[in-house]
Amino acid sequence: MPPAFKSVAVVGKSDAASLPDVLDQLVALLRRRGVAILMDPPTAGASRARPDEIAEMAELPARSDLAVIVGGDGTLISCARLMADRGVPLVGINLGRLGFLTDVPADGLEGAMEAILSGESIPEQRMLLNGSVRRGGETLFSALAMNDVVVSRGAMGSMIEIAVTVDGEFIYTLRADGLIVSTPTGSTAYALSAGGPILHPALSAIALVPISPHTLSNRPVAIRSASRVEITLVRGVDARANFDVQAFWELEPGDVVAVSAAARPATLLHPKGYRYFAMLRQKLRWTERTS
Amino acid sequence: MPPAFKSVAVVGKSDAASLPDVLDQLVALLRRRGVAILMDPPTAGASRARPDEIAEMAELPARSDLAVIVGGDGTLISCARLMADRGVPLVGINLGRLGFLTDVPADGLEGAMEAILSGESIPEQRMLLNGSVRRGGETLFSALAMNDVVVSRGAMGSMIEIAVTVDGEFIYTLRADGLIVSTPTGSTAYALSAGGPILHPALSAIALVPISPHTLSNRPVAIRSASRVEITLVRGVDARANFDVQAFWELEPGDVVAVSAAARPATLLHPKGYRYFAMLRQKLRWTERTS
Amino acid sequence: MPPAFKSVAVVGKSDAASLPDVLDQLVALLRRRGVAILMDPPTAGASRARPDEIAEMAELPARSDLAVIVGGDGTLISCARLMADRGVPLVGINLGRLGFLTDVPADGLEGAMEAILSGESIPEQRMLLNGSVRRGGETLFSALAMNDVVVSRGAMGSMIEIAVTVDGEFIYTLRADGLIVSTPTGSTAYALSAGGPILHPALSAIALVPISPHTLSNRPVAIRSASRVEITLVRGVDARANFDVQAFWELEPGDVVAVSAAARPATLLHPKGYRYFAMLRQKLRWTERTS
Amino acid sequence: MPPAFKSVAVVGKSDAASLPDVLDQLVALLRRRGVAILMDPPTAGASRARPDEIAEMAELPARSDLAVIVGGDGTLISCARLMADRGVPLVGINLGRLGFLTDVPADGLEGAMEAILSGESIPEQRMLLNGSVRRGGETLFSALAMNDVVVSRGAMGSMIEIAVTVDGEFIYTLRADGLIVSTPTGSTAYALSAGGPILHPALSAIALVPISPHTLSNRPVAIRSASRVEITLVRGVDARANFDVQAFWELEPGDVVAVSAAARPATLLHPKGYRYFAMLRQKLRWTERTS
Repeated sequence: MPPAFKSVAVVGKSDAASLPDVLDQLVALLRRRGVAILMDPPTAGASRARPDEIAEMAELPARSDLAVIVGGDGTLISCARLMADRGVPLVGINLGRLGFLTDVPADGLEGAMEAILSGESIPEQRMLLNGSVRRGGETLFSALAMNDVVVSRGAMGSMIEIAVTVDGEFIYTLRADGLIVSTPTGSTAYALSAGGPILHPALSAIALVPISPHTLSNRPVAIRSASRVEITLVRGVDARANFDVQAFWELEPGDVVAVSAAARPATLLHPKGYRYFAMLRQKLRWTERTS
Repeated sequence: MPPAFKSVAVVGKSDAASLPDVLDQLVALLRRRGVAILMDPPTAGASRARPDEIAEMAELPARSDLAVIVGGDGTLISCARLMADRGVPLVGINLGRLGFLTDVPADGLEGAMEAILSGESIPEQRMLLNGSVRRGGETLFSALAMNDVVVSRGAMGSMIEIAVTVDGEFIYTLRADGLIVSTPTGSTAYALSAGGPILHPALSAIALVPISPHTLSNRPVAIRSASRVEITLVRGVDARANFDVQAFWELEPGDVVAVSAAARPATLLHPKGYRYFAMLRQKLRWTERTS
Repeated sequence: MPPAFKSVAVVGKSDAASLPDVLDQLVALLRRRGVAILMDPPTAGASRARPDEIAEMAELPARSDLAVIVGGDGTLISCARLMADRGVPLVGINLGRLGFLTDVPADGLEGAMEAILSGESIPEQRMLLNGSVRRGGETLFSALAMNDVVVSRGAMGSMIEIAVTVDGEFIYTLRADGLIVSTPTGSTAYALSAGGPILHPALSAIALVPISPHTLSNRPVAIRSASRVEITLVRGVDARANFDVQAFWELEPGDVVAVSAAARPATLLHPKGYRYFAMLRQKLRWTERTS
Repeated sequence: MPPAFKSVAVVGKSDAASLPDVLDQLVALLRRRGVAILMDPPTAGASRARPDEIAEMAELPARSDLAVIVGGDGTLISCARLMADRGVPLVGINLGRLGFLTDVPADGLEGAMEAILSGESIPEQRMLLNGSVRRGGETLFSALAMNDVVVSRGAMGSMIEIAVTVDGEFIYTLRADGLIVSTPTGSTAYALSAGGPILHPALSAIALVPISPHTLSNRPVAIRSASRVEITLVRGVDARANFDVQAFWELEPGDVVAVSAAARPATLLHPKGYRYFAMLRQKLRWTERTS
C-alpha cells in the first residue's frame, strides 16, 4: 500500500541537545518510506537536509499533506495557526517531556511514526479562534489562535477596564488584569493558571476567564463555540491583545477585539492508544491509584 | 384567541408573608381568563382554593399544561423534576428576591402572566440529569436532578475516595469532600461555591467539580452533555449521593453512581425582556457601568 | 555524655508491611543507648516488646520525655494532642512517604535517631487550638486540635449558616458547607484543599477558611493567634464540630464553638538539615530548577 | 483644651464634582479651630486657599502633624508613603464611596473631624514594605509600599520565571505572571484579586501571592513580617517591579528585588465606631443577617 501521505513538512524547534538526532531519525524514516520532505531553514539547519528539501515556512501549508513537529506545544501551535486554512494534519513529537499536544515521545518515534504514516492514528479536531481588532469601523488586525486570545494590561501594572458582549448581549464591565478567551485546547494552558475550567476537546465551547478580577464574583464562564465575543477596551493605558502569545496588537480605548470560532479546525493525529484523560493525568499529576 | 394554556398547576411554597396575597392575585387572574387551576394541598391551604381546584402533587403533571411556581428556585426545581417526563413548561414567580430560575417579580405578576398566557414569553430548555445508584449488578435507586448529582462525605468529616470515568474512560481517583456533577443550571448553585465555572444554559455540557480536593490540580472539568459519568465509591464510611439536595442515597464502597443527561429537558418560560446575563449580573452583583 | 532522654514513648500505627521491622530497629537502638521504652499495646503487639515496656496510651505523657511516632501525620497529631499538656517533644518517622510532620525517613532512622537522641535536632514549636462547645451557659465538650477545628454540615448535604466573631467583633454570617479554623500546621491540610493560604509555622496566626461559601467574597481570613474565635450555629440540621477529624461533637442551633490558642504548643524535633520550605517543595511538587 | 494638632496637611484628589465643596468645608472647619493648613498646589487650586497655605508636597511631612486626605485609597497611600518617615498620622475622607482606608464619609465630615481633632479617634498602625532593586552588588532603586511590591510580566504576555527566598531559605522557582508581596493593607487590594488571603491589619505578616502560576500548587503563603523576601528574576523579557502601582523599575534577568518591613509603620486615625470587619463587610458585601 502506498503511503497515505506524499509530502511531509518537518518543523523542529527546541533547545534540547537531542534535536538533531531526532530530526535525523525522522528524516531517515520518511526517506525510507519514499515520502517527500520539506523543512523550513532553521529545521533544515539542524538536520542533514538536502537542498530540495528546504522551503520557507510560508510555503509549507500548500506543499505538504502532513506536518510533523519536533519540540514543544508552542511550536506545534505556531504550525497549527499557519496550516489551519489548508487543513494539514499535525503530529507532535516531544523531546523528553510530554506536552499537552506533542504526545509522541522521541524515543518511540519509529514505531509511532510508522503507524501514523500507515494511517493508524487517532485523529482529533481542535477548534481555533479567529480574533480581530476593530477601531472605528475598520479592522486593523486579525489572527488565529489555537489556545487563546487574551486582552490584558501591559507593564504599568494597573487594571484595565473592558466591556464584554456575547452575541451582542452585554455580559459585564470587567476591571481586571485582563480576559482570556480560550479554546478547549487553551483551557489547560494560561486559562488554567488564571483559574479557568478544563474543557474537554470534544466540547464545542469557549471559556471566558478573567485574570485577577477586581470583583470576586467575576468567575469563568463557558459559552457555546458558535458564539461571537466582543471585548471593548474602556480604560487602560497600555493594553494589548495577544493571540497565543505569538501575535500582538496594542489597543487604545474604544478598540474592539472580536473573537469567534475559526472556519476550520486543526486536526491532530495522535498515536494509537492515546487517551485525553490519560495525558491529563500525567501532565497534572492526578492520582491514578484506586486503592 | 383562546388561551394557549387550558389547565395550570399552581405551586406555592415560601416563608414570605406575602405568599397568600400573591397566590390570590394569581388565582384571580387565571380564573378571569377562564383557565382551569390545580393546586396541591399546601398551596391550596395558603389560598382561597375551591375544592375542585385541589389535587395531589403527583397528579399535577398529567393534568396541567403549564406550571406556575410561586417561591424560590428550590421549589421550581422540585416541580421541574416532577414535571420533566410530561414536558410541562414552568414559570417561576419570586416573592421579592430574584432567583436564578424564578424570574417573574411578584409585583409585576399581572402584566407578566397575562403576556405569558398569551404566548408572549421566552421559552428556554434546561437539561436535567438522570442519576442512578448501582450495587453489584442491580440498580438500587434513580432520580432526576436539575442542578446536580453530588457524591460527598457525610458527618464524619474525612475525605472520601472515588474513581471517576467518562464514557468508560478513566479520569482519576479523587480524594476530596466529594464531586459535583452539574448541569448548566446547577453551575450557578453549589458548583459555583465549590469553584466551578459558570456554564451558559445553551451550552450542552456537564461540569465535574471536585469539592475541596486533596490534590490541588484536580480542577473542574467540563464535558459534553452526551457523556456518561460513572463514579465508584472506593473508600468512605458515610458517603451519600444526593440529587438537587432533594433526594438521597447512602453509598457503600463499591457502589457506582451513574449520571447522564435525562431524555427530556425542562422548559422554562421567561417573561419578555429576559436575558440570561442580565439576570446573572444582578444575582452576582457584576459591574454594569461602562464609564 | 548520658542521653538527654531517659524514657521514650514509641507509638507505631500504619498499614505498611514494614512497620514491625522499623519498630524493631528503633527499639534495638533505644535499648542499645540504655533508654527506657514505653509502648501502647497495639504498638507493642507489632514489635517484640518486653512486658515492662508496655503501658496504656494515657500513661505515656506522664512517663516519657520524648515521643517517637512511626507512621503518618495523623498518628503524630493524635500523640501531639495527648502529650501537649506535658510538653513532651515529638519525632515523626515515616514509612516511605514523607509527611508534613513525620519527616524522618525510616531508611535513615539509625543516623537520624542517634543525632536526635544526642540533642542534635531542630526543635520547632507548633501552636495547638483549644476548642470547646457551649450550649446555653454550659460547656459541653472541649478538645485540642493541632490542625483545625471544623464546623461543618453533615450528610444531608445542605448548607449550614453560622455567625462568626473574633474577639467579640462580629465578622459575618456565613452560609457554607462549613468553616475551618486552622493553625499554621493545619494550613497545609484540609484548609489548603478548601482554598486557604499556607501559613508559615513561625507566624502566630489562625486562618478562618470557609468551605464552599455561598457568597463568593467570603474569602479566607488570617488573624492573630491571640484572638478568640466564636462560631454560633444559626441554622443546620446535622452540623458537627470536629477537632483534627479525631474528636467530634454534634451541634444544635444556638450552640457556640469557641476556639483559641492552647496554653502550650507542641514541640517537634526535626532531623538536622530540616527546612520547612524544602519539605513543602517536595510535598507540593513545587519547582526547584533555577534554569 | 488646645487642639492636639497644630498644623494639618490637606491633600485632595478626585474626579468627583463635590471635591471643591468638601475641601471648602474642611478648610473652614480647620480655620475655625485655629489650626494651620497646608495644601499642595493641586489641592490648593481646587479650594479657596490663602497663599500662605500652599506648600509643595515634599514639604508637607516636615511641616504638618496630621494629614487629611480627601479622595480614594490610592491618594491616601501616596501620602502614607511620603509621610511615613515622619510618622505623620493620616485621616481619609471619601467622596461618596467608602474606601478600605478612606473611611470618613464626606457628608459626616464635620462631626467626625471635630472628634478626631479633639483626639477622639481610633489610631491604627499599618506596616509598610521597603522594597529595593539590586543589580550586581549595587542597589539601583528603593521605595516604600503600603499595599504591595509586585514583580510581574510586562506587555509581552508571557510568563516570567523568578526564584524566591525568605530569610535566605529558598522557597521555589515560580513561573507565573508575577508575584505579589503584600502587607495586610494590600491583602484586600490586588492580592485579593489574585487569590490571596485577607490578613487582619493587627497580624504582623506578609503574604506572597503568585499571579496566575503555572504550577497549580503554588498557593499563597503568609510569613512573619520580620522576614526578608528576595526575588531574583531568572527569565523574562519585560519584567518590572512596582510599588503600590505608584513607582516602577524595569528588571533584567539577575536583578534581585528585596522586600522587608519598613522601619516605621503608618498611623491611620479612624473615626469613633470604626471596626475593621464592619468595613470589610460593607466593602465585600458580606452577609450581615443572622436569621
